[in-house]
Amino acid sequence: MRRIESSQNSQVKHWKRLVTVRKERDKSGEFLVEGFHLVEEALKKPDLVLSIIIREGITIPKAWNVEDIEIIEVTMDIAVEIAETEHSQGIYAHCSQPKSTTDQQQNWKKLLFIDAVQDPGNVGTMIRTADAAGMDAVILGKGSADAFNPKTVRSGQGSHFHIPIVKGDLSQWIQSCKYKKIAVYGTSLEDSVTYNDVEPQQQFALIMGNEGSGLSPEILVQTDMNLKIPLLGQAESLNVAVATGILLYTLIPINIKS
Amino acid sequence: MRRIESSQNSQVKHWKRLVTVRKERDKSGEFLVEGFHLVEEALKKPDLVLSIIIREGITIPKAWNVEDIEIIEVTMDIAVEIAETEHSQGIYAHCSQPKSTTDQQQNWKKLLFIDAVQDPGNVGTMIRTADAAGMDAVILGKGSADAFNPKTVRSGQGSHFHIPIVKGDLSQWIQSCKYKKIAVYGTSLEDSVTYNDVEPQQQFALIMGNEGSGLSPEILVQTDMNLKIPLLGQAESLNVAVATGILLYTLIPINIKS
Repeated sequence: MRRIESSQNSQVKHWKRLVTVRKERDKSGEFLVEGFHLVEEALKKPDLVLSIIIREGITIPKAWNVEDIEIIEVTMDIAVEIAETEHSQGIYAHCSQPKSTTDQQQNWKKLLFIDAVQDPGNVGTMIRTADAAGMDAVILGKGSADAFNPKTVRSGQGSHFHIPIVKGDLSQWIQSCKYKKIAVYGTSLEDSVTYNDVEPQQQFALIMGNEGSGLSPEILVQTDMNLKIPLLGQAESLNVAVATGILLYTLIPINIKS
Repeated sequence: MRRIESSQNSQVKHWKRLVTVRKERDKSGEFLVEGFHLVEEALKKPDLVLSIIIREGITIPKAWNVEDIEIIEVTMDIAVEIAETEHSQGIYAHCSQPKSTTDQQQNWKKLLFIDAVQDPGNVGTMIRTADAAGMDAVILGKGSADAFNPKTVRSGQGSHFHIPIVKGDLSQWIQSCKYKKIAVYGTSLEDSVTYNDVEPQQQFALIMGNEGSGLSPEILVQTDMNLKIPLLGQAESLNVAVATGILLYTLIPINIKS
């Protein structure tokens, strides 16, 4: 096991920048996850794990298969520097961001498109919800919080290792869906149908928009149909991740009978 | 307009404790809200607003009706002390927690019960979701985050002023529902029916449980029926506020046809 004691070490600087600087994540295609649960989820995709970093005194659970993975021990000071949360568990995985091939992308039939959702916690919860609903992938359009921001990863609860996440041009993705006859649903209060008037679909794309302003106008004109969730009380809106859950669990076919 | 310049002022100390100490909120039955949007929502229930606090240099929007409300100006230093968020807008409302009478409570027919949900952001989003779904009230059982914690209030997005929130003994509330023939739905993966096998109900109580462990065993044995949301991907669970949205929007009758 390697041990690093200097916070001036170039690797420590890289880890720290992965936590704090989006450009560093974008450029390197890497990210850092924190805590026992997320590191364990990362290890289910061992090809993505570049190294596991532990604070001195922390022991890796015996049940984990880490034979082929580099373990790096760091001092308490370094562990604090690369920690995102105040009460860090002192264990991290330095990971590659998962990639998907064009061939894989061609086969996706159930897609969640995220259009300029700004809060990382919301984006992470939406990724987790898409995973739970058995979606094939999440596509993040421009203006959205970074999928690999530590806050996004934390709210994703491991789903970053379960479901492909792609940054892309939503207009191009919508065109590709139309070509493949996949229905594209937007969300809007105007010119829209109530969510529960729509039948479950074997293939579809759902687009969710910005917390304050909803879908961008240029995206809205490209949808096949827009859905709305009635607000029956005095709330002005629903949280975007909650709305995502309601709509995905309306659109996906549930065949499990109790 | 009164102006306070000393952070040793007893009122400033009380505001600060309302933000940071649950006991202070419980004992006084008061809380503080922050930011233009929440203060505006508070003003829709003027009886609850004890005073509006503004940082020097901040102007109250002309459209607001604040004639009968005390406005207190404070220095930048005091504004920072009572701020919950880093980028505070410098405007606060010191409010009484809304109360409901036994007579009002007797008429409630659509209820959300929260059993030991610990994250204030989750509890706030659940209150907002219950408001959106047109529920009559939210009942918070023991072990839940405080409804009037600043983080809970922030995620509530104003719903604290729209829907009654009561702290209570969930077992007693369940008994009261049974007496009134109101169906009580729990949530569980075992001995449960899939959420979309249940028809919308004119009256019901839904109980949502702790983020990690779900419903308490003593609550689970008292429900009429338990619901589950199938997990179709690899996610181990849904966020509790997202699950609340899916279940409430399955159980409430949606009569609005597009």
